Amino acid sequence: MSEIKKVKIGVLGMGVVGEELISIILNNRDKIRRQYSLDLEIKGVFVRNLDKPRRITGLNLTDNAEELLDDPEISVICECIGGAGTEKTREYVFRAVNNGKSVIMSSKKVLALYGKELMQKVLENKVGFGFDATVGGGIPIAKILKNCFKGEGINRVIGILNATSNFIYTRMDKDGLSFEEALKKAQELGYAENDPSEDINGYDALYKAIVLTLFSMKTWTDIRKYAVVPFSQINAADMKYAKELGYHIKPLVVVEKKKSIVYRIGPCLVKESNIAATTNDNFNVIVLEGTNTGVLGFYGQGAGSKPTASAMFDDLINVLNKKDSDELLSHELQLDEIHDVNSLEEYKNNLYWRITVENRVGMFANIASTMAKNNINIERIIQKDEEGDRIGVVLLTSSIDTETISNIIDELKENNIIINAVIPFLDE
Amino acid sequence: MSEIKKVKIGVLGMGVVGEELISIILNNRDKIRRQYSLDLEIKGVFVRNLDKPRRITGLNLTDNAEELLDDPEISVICECIGGAGTEKTREYVFRAVNNGKSVIMSSKKVLALYGKELMQKVLENKVGFGFDATVGGGIPIAKILKNCFKGEGINRVIGILNATSNFIYTRMDKDGLSFEEALKKAQELGYAENDPSEDINGYDALYKAIVLTLFSMKTWTDIRKYAVVPFSQINAADMKYAKELGYHIKPLVVVEKKKSIVYRIGPCLVKESNIAATTNDNFNVIVLEGTNTGVLGFYGQGAGSKPTASAMFDDLINVLNKKDSDELLSHELQLDEIHDVNSLEEYKNNLYWRITVENRVGMFANIASTMAKNNINIERIIQKDEEGDRIGVVLLTSSIDTETISNIIDELKENNIIINAVIPFLDE
Repeated sequence: MSEIKKVKIGVLGMGVVGEELISIILNNRDKIRRQYSLDLEIKGVFVRNLDKPRRITGLNLTDNAEELLDDPEISVICECIGGAGTEKTREYVFRAVNNGKSVIMSSKKVLALYGKELMQKVLENKVGFGFDATVGGGIPIAKILKNCFKGEGINRVIGILNATSNFIYTRMDKDGLSFEEALKKAQELGYAENDPSEDINGYDALYKAIVLTLFSMKTWTDIRKYAVVPFSQINAADMKYAKELGYHIKPLVVVEKKKSIVYRIGPCLVKESNIAATTNDNFNVIVLEGTNTGVLGFYGQGAGSKPTASAMFDDLINVLNKKDSDELLSHELQLDEIHDVNSLEEYKNNLYWRITVENRVGMFANIASTMAKNNINIERIIQKDEEGDRIGVVLLTSSIDTETISNIIDELKENNIIINAVIPFLDE
Repeated sequence: MSEIKKVKIGVLGMGVVGEELISIILNNRDKIRRQYSLDLEIKGVFVRNLDKPRRITGLNLTDNAEELLDDPEISVICECIGGAGTEKTREYVFRAVNNGKSVIMSSKKVLALYGKELMQKVLENKVGFGFDATVGGGIPIAKILKNCFKGEGINRVIGILNATSNFIYTRMDKDGLSFEEALKKAQELGYAENDPSEDINGYDALYKAIVLTLFSMKTWTDIRKYAVVPFSQINAADMKYAKELGYHIKPLVVVEKKKSIVYRIGPCLVKESNIAATTNDNFNVIVLEGTNTGVLGFYGQGAGSKPTASAMFDDLINVLNKKDSDELLSHELQLDEIHDVNSLEEYKNNLYWRITVENRVGMFANIASTMAKNNINIERIIQKDEEGDRIGVVLLTSSIDTETISNIIDELKENNIIINAVIPFLDE
């Protein structure tokens, strides 16, 4: 039996995730002592309100984070602040790392905004770093990226990373609800926040995409260079028509390594046999495409305090278990491989269009000639519902770059054609 | 920059996996030297036929495995022998471990038969051990099990672990082929061996189930205590009827932790929305159900030399990267948690029955009374095709233990009823 090593932990935040993490730490103390010769002690917990009643009592609470961040006895900080206060969270995390403490993080936004600088500090200070709770909830994607793909590159990452939007899309697809109705249902069930804007406008997915890009492709992308199509730009009619064509529309993130990093975040048509098409409700999926390994898909609950806290606890034990010496583990990320991306190529995809046209002679010829003029092939044209003197039409076209799309939209509008939706297909 | 450490590797076997692994090692030497300060050298390769032409030349080949296993300079043995010669493989692997060498394994059968003893030797000799290539092809299930679930138990493992059978089932389900036709197609495409018996009788899946049980539930099960329903016991008609009911029939492995380990290997009806139902062709899926994390699914190519060799290469680097000292890494598996299972409880599942009855008055009453007598509820009864004076009938019943099933079958047979199929449902 090796000697028991005492580890003092500081926890920042005691919301649902923080509380769950503390509970897992307390419940597994004996097991971890036995299996890893580590004696875990929660030395203090930073909370904003000392007077709020707590489910777990007997803890040393403080409303002064520095008390923990500057305590030389504390070797690991678990950051469970989540969405509340990005600037403060950034300050705390950097302070912990600069003070030589290992950090287990949950805030994706701070990692997405300051990841490159943070990784440099982690390496300089030779501390441990865990971030599995920032992306994919219970999916151990960080642990997979750290332990796999050592002899090959990851060429593409596809993900459903926002549980709120996926729940909404699933209810639209299966129950025929409108976006607003489905959002309301998500809020009732606790799958969406009162202010769901970060989720439904795609920013939550964007933060996660940046973190995934950093750790899967060792490439750092400046958040200002990303554009996002809001997940809320979706209509139940499109869900229905997509299904008739053998597809489901999903709130998708696609990151592809070409000359530079190519990305797409927004609604996307996915073939019904694809694992992303069958990932429903509040589940997440992350699909990695490696040179040798081929397609690997990981599927799990995208949110929830238990899966998230569980991921943080595994990070904690892995970080502590790394070396027996007092000096805690250095992070394995190869920083020299992190390169910046300055230009983002445009994604070109086959497209689904839903338009409304006047029901008169020559209208279709009009559309066809606009497309032909822009060198776009119409692969299918499907007439949908008639409403008065107008008809709904679905077109499937060959792949188009963004500039041409806006040219076509302008031309169609001039001809009194209403563009209801333009949605890309996922390349298989 | 830390000092470069020279690592001499012995490779056993140069079939498709061995050749691919060697190629990955050679192609990544510079990268691994740079990133991990490890200089990988393949000191020798054991082959059975020295005269066979090889794609990779310039290697030191030997037809004497001991030459590598007893070489004190070699610190890691990569076993790529696969299915060829279980006893010899066992002997080689144990010899390598006893000689203080780390081992990266690919043979699931040897691990399934001798896993407990082998793990004890690995721990005694404090060597590294990698086994990710034995289960799930490119799916990094071993790495996930090693790095996750530290604060919780895994209660159930569901898997499609045999790519050959899954390919056959998919072609039966999608193209309406018979088992034999689909098997022939699998052989033509290289997804099935000339002698496919280990795959289609379920033994390949059984070996993998035992390995998964050992590493996910830390429980060792004697292979003789397992019974398997051959995957070949399946008919295209059942695929069709299952689909009408909203299910797909899959070649499934289910391992559940109850009082003891409860298992089922064989054809199984899976709800069409389940990730296992949408895992098709030569893909594998492994679903872990944890106390906190909930359902986690991992999806990837179940076979193929590239994914398998890639998993072995990751194992190799992870094992070598573990400690900086000369003494190589001890395995993290907690052997004191491996307990034996002496009795296996029976799985009880809702059942799908396809029977053929004479088309005469009182026949349904007959079936109903047999079921009622055995305390079984008929949840649905669907009349299928009529053939002459006989009708095909599909029954869905409540859950039944194995003994009652055979009682019912006997009674039905006495009444001149033909039992075409009895297939369980997967509990959701």
